[in-house]
Amino acid sequence: MVKVGIVGLGTVGEAVVRNLQKNKDIIKARAGKEIKVVKGVIREPNKYKHLNIPLSTDYKEVTRDKDIDIVVELIGGVDKAFEIVSDALKHNKAVVTANKALLAYHRFELQKIAKTPFGFEASVAGGIPIIKALRDGLSANHILEIKGIINGTCNYILSEMKKGKPYEDALKEAQELGYAEADPTFDVGGFDTAHKLLILASIAYNIDAKPEDILIEGIENINLTDIEFAKEFGYEIKLLGIAKKIDNKIELRVHPTLIKNNEMISKVDGVMNAISVIGDVVGETMYYGPGAGGDATASAVISDIIEIARGNNNPMLGFKIPLEIEKVKLISPDEIISKYYLRIAVKDKLGVLEKIAHILAQNNISIESFLQRPKKDYVKLLFSTHKAVEKDIKKAIKEIETLDFVIKPINYIRIEE
Amino acid sequence: MVKVGIVGLGTVGEAVVRNLQKNKDIIKARAGKEIKVVKGVIREPNKYKHLNIPLSTDYKEVTRDKDIDIVVELIGGVDKAFEIVSDALKHNKAVVTANKALLAYHRFELQKIAKTPFGFEASVAGGIPIIKALRDGLSANHILEIKGIINGTCNYILSEMKKGKPYEDALKEAQELGYAEADPTFDVGGFDTAHKLLILASIAYNIDAKPEDILIEGIENINLTDIEFAKEFGYEIKLLGIAKKIDNKIELRVHPTLIKNNEMISKVDGVMNAISVIGDVVGETMYYGPGAGGDATASAVISDIIEIARGNNNPMLGFKIPLEIEKVKLISPDEIISKYYLRIAVKDKLGVLEKIAHILAQNNISIESFLQRPKKDYVKLLFSTHKAVEKDIKKAIKEIETLDFVIKPINYIRIEE
Repeated sequence: MVKVGIVGLGTVGEAVVRNLQKNKDIIKARAGKEIKVVKGVIREPNKYKHLNIPLSTDYKEVTRDKDIDIVVELIGGVDKAFEIVSDALKHNKAVVTANKALLAYHRFELQKIAKTPFGFEASVAGGIPIIKALRDGLSANHILEIKGIINGTCNYILSEMKKGKPYEDALKEAQELGYAEADPTFDVGGFDTAHKLLILASIAYNIDAKPEDILIEGIENINLTDIEFAKEFGYEIKLLGIAKKIDNKIELRVHPTLIKNNEMISKVDGVMNAISVIGDVVGETMYYGPGAGGDATASAVISDIIEIARGNNNPMLGFKIPLEIEKVKLISPDEIISKYYLRIAVKDKLGVLEKIAHILAQNNISIESFLQRPKKDYVKLLFSTHKAVEKDIKKAIKEIETLDFVIKPINYIRIEE
Repeated sequence: MVKVGIVGLGTVGEAVVRNLQKNKDIIKARAGKEIKVVKGVIREPNKYKHLNIPLSTDYKEVTRDKDIDIVVELIGGVDKAFEIVSDALKHNKAVVTANKALLAYHRFELQKIAKTPFGFEASVAGGIPIIKALRDGLSANHILEIKGIINGTCNYILSEMKKGKPYEDALKEAQELGYAEADPTFDVGGFDTAHKLLILASIAYNIDAKPEDILIEGIENINLTDIEFAKEFGYEIKLLGIAKKIDNKIELRVHPTLIKNNEMISKVDGVMNAISVIGDVVGETMYYGPGAGGDATASAVISDIIEIARGNNNPMLGFKIPLEIEKVKLISPDEIISKYYLRIAVKDKLGVLEKIAHILAQNNISIESFLQRPKKDYVKLLFSTHKAVEKDIKKAIKEIETLDFVIKPINYIRIEE
């Protein structure tokens, strides 16, 4: 029998206990052993008596219990979770966690102290087994690129905007449906996506980077004009977490992205998640499914428990030997090369287009397509550019914003093709 | 070091050797050990000298070589492959194979004699890690349903027909592009899909069935009228391998299927493959990618080799303990319940519709929608039905075909909703 202690019995913790019970026969057949939750740790034990498991308020009662084999950490957050998980590893417990923030900051430290199995399938894209796909299924490949829709809130909002709803209305609806928090910044600002992207990138590239090191932009500035432009030119707008390898340089970035509407990942709507991975041997594969929710996340947590019960020996971040040969280096956000879409609102004056085009040309930015939309009191100019360097675009935008006929701020969206 | 012997050096075998060499550093880092191909077995060694590996014409030189750890079988076919793989297992070699036909017939026999690891990720959907997803990533779930586009040839032909090409033209094009064989029966007749479906079903349900036991229909009778009907009513036509669990009864079937065009799997076009899996805990996840080709298949073969090198201990068909509790039973094709689309060509006479509707009603089939299309010398009647039992539909069709105004044969397509 494999004995499990769970720290944190919120939505996911409750679903883990319930599904381990509901599917215990098939789980036993697949794991080769019975799996039993022998203790739950929670601040207010009285609220969780219906779960019918022994409860405690002290995490050390699971991390240091000689009888417990696996500690499942489901409290979220960084510092306390790090304390608990470290304590469990030091006491030779296998660990399973769904905690993306913990891993975004401490995955390499934890790998260093982990002598026991460490599962974190649930930390990225909920029920989609993307960690195992990258670590095991695609292990023959150099990963050239990862593009992920890994925040359901943003994808829901953008999908609703495509139907013509303004951003504020779509956000409010997401909040009413429970997809977005009262303070939605963590989701719509791209931070949640960044945490998950960093986890995927460390399996693909063995690269240690923190959220502060990478480009993170949210969807707050997308408006219906952008959606309309996208439709007109055959694009969808998606918040993507992107990891890309060019020679030995790694780009890691989170931002709203215009992608061609014939790409499979552009077809993912609503709260669903999907991750497209390009490997040098296999080409593109994509993984689609529910990225959140108690049951979907529990499916991933339990799959890790079963894997540990089977006695498997997969390296935590996918590498059994440090990948000295790769020597990959994180690229500075300023050096990123992309195509861009620019939305510039201007007063309708003579010579406006000429002046803007001049600044773009001076900064090595060449225009691919151009659309002019008259509004009530002003004109919207929509450009898409050929490939340009991020710092050049930023400089050009600053210069254009100083022109007296420009109504600030200028918005821009990167284009992936 | 892990020493590999490969039997069969065709497109896939050559790609395995080449990619093991090309990516040897990252593969070593992920596997924890160097992986080396020490022998290749092939009928005509002179043709393969460029691979720079020792060659032999006798498979026993790998299956019985004390120095070899893993035997990779890539010759295809059933009987000879079974002889080779059995011999390897009896001599305590781990085995990796891409051979779907072998497994469609012998997977349970092989499981019985395998005391060593046995990998077959490459046998279904080429480079998509669907075996690992079902066996490891979704292990917490009872699998309620699998729907797979797992034959690229059929999906290519159907995608081209959607653009207005008749079946014969699309097939000819597929042959010219190398997607279809000169004799395309194995692909377009649904047999290839059936082999792969049986493999997936045995991991999901631990069910032993042979191709002869299940319903297999191909795409040969689909025509542009059907495509047009599908468009009009918001469907796509896809050749699906379907496994479904209803109580303890399992439906296994391969046939062209009308599926709603908002389902993710309906959006998979061209030669690409995808498998949608519904689990009772996670809900729907989908796996998309290249289902064929030397490199894509090699990616899967090498991932199995790496898993074995890591020392993993996954049960071959996903169950460490026989799943007595399930006692699942394969349903007879006659008992399948589905919605249907019927295409009936009739001479334009009075009372035609009434007589057909009468026969349908007598067989417990109720009509959901109806479309009449005039042609030059006759009329096409297109029906979709509510849920009905397969044997009732077949009986009704036989009866309708006896009517003197009916131009035979009647075609029907199952609808999945």
